[in-house]
Amino acid sequence: MSSYAIVIHGGAGTILPAAMTTELEQSYKAALQEAMDAGFRCLTAGGTSIEAVKAAVMSLEDCILFNAGRGAVFAKDGSQEMDASIMDGSNRMAGAVAAVRNIRNPVELAYVVMTKSQHVMLNGKGAQEFAKIHGLKTEPDEYFYSEFRHQQWKQMQDTDAMALDHSVTIPATASSDDFAEGKPSFTKVSEDKKFGTVGAVALDQYGNIAAATSTGGMTNKQWGRVGDSPIIGAGTYANNMTCAISCTGHGEPFIRAVTAYDVSCLMEYKGLSLQEAMHIVVHDKLLKIDGEGGMIGVDAAGNTAMVFNSEGMYRGRRDSEGLNETLIYK
Amino acid sequence: MSSYAIVIHGGAGTILPAAMTTELEQSYKAALQEAMDAGFRCLTAGGTSIEAVKAAVMSLEDCILFNAGRGAVFAKDGSQEMDASIMDGSNRMAGAVAAVRNIRNPVELAYVVMTKSQHVMLNGKGAQEFAKIHGLKTEPDEYFYSEFRHQQWKQMQDTDAMALDHSVTIPATASSDDFAEGKPSFTKVSEDKKFGTVGAVALDQYGNIAAATSTGGMTNKQWGRVGDSPIIGAGTYANNMTCAISCTGHGEPFIRAVTAYDVSCLMEYKGLSLQEAMHIVVHDKLLKIDGEGGMIGVDAAGNTAMVFNSEGMYRGRRDSEGLNETLIYK
Repeated sequence: MSSYAIVIHGGAGTILPAAMTTELEQSYKAALQEAMDAGFRCLTAGGTSIEAVKAAVMSLEDCILFNAGRGAVFAKDGSQEMDASIMDGSNRMAGAVAAVRNIRNPVELAYVVMTKSQHVMLNGKGAQEFAKIHGLKTEPDEYFYSEFRHQQWKQMQDTDAMALDHSVTIPATASSDDFAEGKPSFTKVSEDKKFGTVGAVALDQYGNIAAATSTGGMTNKQWGRVGDSPIIGAGTYANNMTCAISCTGHGEPFIRAVTAYDVSCLMEYKGLSLQEAMHIVVHDKLLKIDGEGGMIGVDAAGNTAMVFNSEGMYRGRRDSEGLNETLIYK
Repeated sequence: MSSYAIVIHGGAGTILPAAMTTELEQSYKAALQEAMDAGFRCLTAGGTSIEAVKAAVMSLEDCILFNAGRGAVFAKDGSQEMDASIMDGSNRMAGAVAAVRNIRNPVELAYVVMTKSQHVMLNGKGAQEFAKIHGLKTEPDEYFYSEFRHQQWKQMQDTDAMALDHSVTIPATASSDDFAEGKPSFTKVSEDKKFGTVGAVALDQYGNIAAATSTGGMTNKQWGRVGDSPIIGAGTYANNMTCAISCTGHGEPFIRAVTAYDVSCLMEYKGLSLQEAMHIVVHDKLLKIDGEGGMIGVDAAGNTAMVFNSEGMYRGRRDSEGLNETLIYK
């Protein structure tokens, strides 16, 4: 147990050592470390948990390797629509945005919705107008463009495949630069499942916890589909009395299971520990409705946990007792 | 306890006898009875709970008196954006739509999302394209127009008031026709709070429960604001093991409290009855975060409950044991 801590994730799914290059693995770990350190520095300097999770998620959004912010996947119509949410466990205030475009950091917009509006959730063009009023940074389409994501989409564009469960096989020579440039070309669609979402949870020196989640959603998504990431209670939840949770996975079962809040209820009403509650939700309740993915959590006592039922989850945790790790596989 | 039952609501808020005409009260009660009977007939004929809640909510959407479907309130830009959700307690499948326009029955669209897509939640224009593919009935703007709602909006249009808490005072001579025609003119903005949402929960002869909710949101709403109505776990939840719940109230606290699922967790994890769980959530948990409103519920044993912390809630329940009532005030 520690006096402050941060845990982050960069998505879960079929992430196997055999499908990964050494260089790419290094790139992922470096990006995770950088995001985690951004949040941790904030905590060390006496910042709040809500500032720390925002800083960590913004760092992950800025990295082209993860499906959130820059590097977001393409929807059916070739656009990149993003969702994000944030919740402050000290007062259970929350903010969320769904289906926003060209916003550099959707999690920052969710934070501004929480702190500068009377609302919890804004969507679409309305959310973008709100962002403009509050001076949030926007970027042209090119900024979000990644050749890797574009090729993912191109392979599915003319199909009706809904693309939760496809990704491009990464060649053995791939490096992180290839994500931006698309060289060597990533052409083969594999049956891998990757749930591209990023998130962070943190405990600060004042005993307050917070959670944030951000995503570009599913490749080739249609019809304005919204997953669990912007849904308070499903993808994100925080309450000082229980836990702060950020999820990543197949969004639909996560919504139906009200996943993040379920962990909180198992702790509050049944007296389970963070680890016990997360284990039941991820390995029992979600699996029963084909809910593949995982979650990260922290409680006000400084316990942290990272639980997933998929092959891997990009993740890391760092605390004031000296724990500092980034992990990918089981 | 009954072998089948339906409970409906037409919104909660500052609904006082002094502010109501006898004729209008009769109109509300007749509309509630009609919607309830539509669902009840379905149950009597051996229909499922999901069909019954859909039928009841469609009837409420078709009535100009309620803020859902026809009669939806105006947003800041003069448009009418609607949200709805539905959940089947037998398999915990769910469907939801946010920010849709010109769809005659948003709850029917939520049902089609649940039954004909791999998704739970669709939003905006994408949701409307999906509706078109599946042949859902659309209506021109004029259909949704009500002079009463238009005047509500006109009084607020040039303000930044967010309009959860304003409504037009109804003259002592008003009848339901006046809602459509706007005669006599409803001009005075009062400090009444009315949370315009409609919903239904039902238990069928097979022991399955279901819930559905639909709304036009807040008058003069801006920035694509989404309330609790389309959020599974917040505005709507159903699980045969515990309860089916539909909420109405100030959406933001209802989202932050994950209101509907909280009732389910209090029943599942603490062993509370439906009535006990709903009482705690509405009169304790919601009030602590200024969450004004109410909810209706049913469990698989046929217990029903209607609980609210506001002055009134348009509501009714009917069951196979002969209970048949429509109520407005405390």
